[in-house]
Amino acid sequence: MRVKLIIAYDGTNYHGWQKQPNAKTIEECIEDALKELFKEDIDIIGASRTDAGVHALGNVAAFDVETRMDAERIALALNQKLPQDIRIMSSEEVEEDFNPRFDAYEKTYEYRISNRRIQVPTKRLYTYFYHKKLNTDKMRQASSYLVGEHDFTSFASIHSQTDSFVRTIYECKVIDESDTDVVIRIRGNGFLYNMVRIIAGTLIKVGIGEIPPERMKEILYGCDRSLAGPTAPPTGLTLCEIEY
Amino acid sequence: MRVKLIIAYDGTNYHGWQKQPNAKTIEECIEDALKELFKEDIDIIGASRTDAGVHALGNVAAFDVETRMDAERIALALNQKLPQDIRIMSSEEVEEDFNPRFDAYEKTYEYRISNRRIQVPTKRLYTYFYHKKLNTDKMRQASSYLVGEHDFTSFASIHSQTDSFVRTIYECKVIDESDTDVVIRIRGNGFLYNMVRIIAGTLIKVGIGEIPPERMKEILYGCDRSLAGPTAPPTGLTLCEIEY
Repeated sequence: MRVKLIIAYDGTNYHGWQKQPNAKTIEECIEDALKELFKEDIDIIGASRTDAGVHALGNVAAFDVETRMDAERIALALNQKLPQDIRIMSSEEVEEDFNPRFDAYEKTYEYRISNRRIQVPTKRLYTYFYHKKLNTDKMRQASSYLVGEHDFTSFASIHSQTDSFVRTIYECKVIDESDTDVVIRIRGNGFLYNMVRIIAGTLIKVGIGEIPPERMKEILYGCDRSLAGPTAPPTGLTLCEIEY
Repeated sequence: MRVKLIIAYDGTNYHGWQKQPNAKTIEECIEDALKELFKEDIDIIGASRTDAGVHALGNVAAFDVETRMDAERIALALNQKLPQDIRIMSSEEVEEDFNPRFDAYEKTYEYRISNRRIQVPTKRLYTYFYHKKLNTDKMRQASSYLVGEHDFTSFASIHSQTDSFVRTIYECKVIDESDTDVVIRIRGNGFLYNMVRIIAGTLIKVGIGEIPPERMKEILYGCDRSLAGPTAPPTGLTLCEIEY
């Protein structure tokens, strides 16, 4: 049967999702746990290859296995073999042709900024600490131009490997969660390499007044990475949810 | 001059506040940073000797030093010498007789519970993971009996060293922060050793129906540690604020 996993992790101590030589990754840890559980080599297909330091509440992966174990029990069995910073939130049997990467129709990311003079230690692993005061009204105005179907070349890493840079953003909200916590919540049908972090880095430049909100349109329509702001650090980013 | 520090820390990697042989503590790290900065041995007096694994947003300490440096600048200078998981949030000159421990008139603690079937990795360091569903209405009823001036012997570690077990609780709120996050917020003129963690452990027993809410009165008036629930783990506890 094919099994779908919903996976949460703290990316702090990992070199991202994807397997690589000489570095600990989320994918490798889960495959190691599967091998221990089922006594065979099992390859998983992940929905999102998150970068080093990026967190997840709901990344998705799938794999095939012949077993008598109930699909729903696999989550608990794997959690007993995984480190505390990776948890399988659920497991279920899916159609044999389910593909976590290509069947996803909507992904939600959050980028969290700790906007204060001095970083709070208990937030340091899960936010980007930024000490200059952000004007979130300006950030909200700028973010509104991103919603819709656009060519997002300006907001993609120059190392992106893709046939098309066109994606649809359904929602891009800038939320004042408290006096000092700013959350950029972004929902779309797919994201280019580093896209959310470049959007966050650009919105931060808007927030400190270095980029006027209206210029977001020119940056978007210019289709040139050098027009946008820097790539914000991975610690602030969480992959929240993937819908199928 | 005497300098007051407001200190935040992630207690995960420390054996608590108080200096001890062969273990890394918050107090020792700050004294090491002071020595590096002022080139002399400086003793600090802390307001609260938090246990291993307990976090702080606003613990307070004071020390004496002869220096030309502005008191307000000391926070920034110390932060350059401290690890990322300890931050001095502010520094200011205070009266020569200021005592952080005895002059405090109000302390606020929060105890955070992640109440879900499977723990979310990004919450594991700053919450207590508890998987049985908590009835927070019952917890709220039980917590109301604690407010006021009482002998809190039932909620103190048997290792407490104190002349009096009488303390005043100004507020004890049980907050549903989300479907899965429960916060016990407690404000009082002082707390006995392990008092907040024993209150949390007892309220959790109320939340799962093992202790009826009204029995909280008997537990309190019984003045016997064995009547109350267990000491909840330190990861959930944060010292939020101390007022003078």
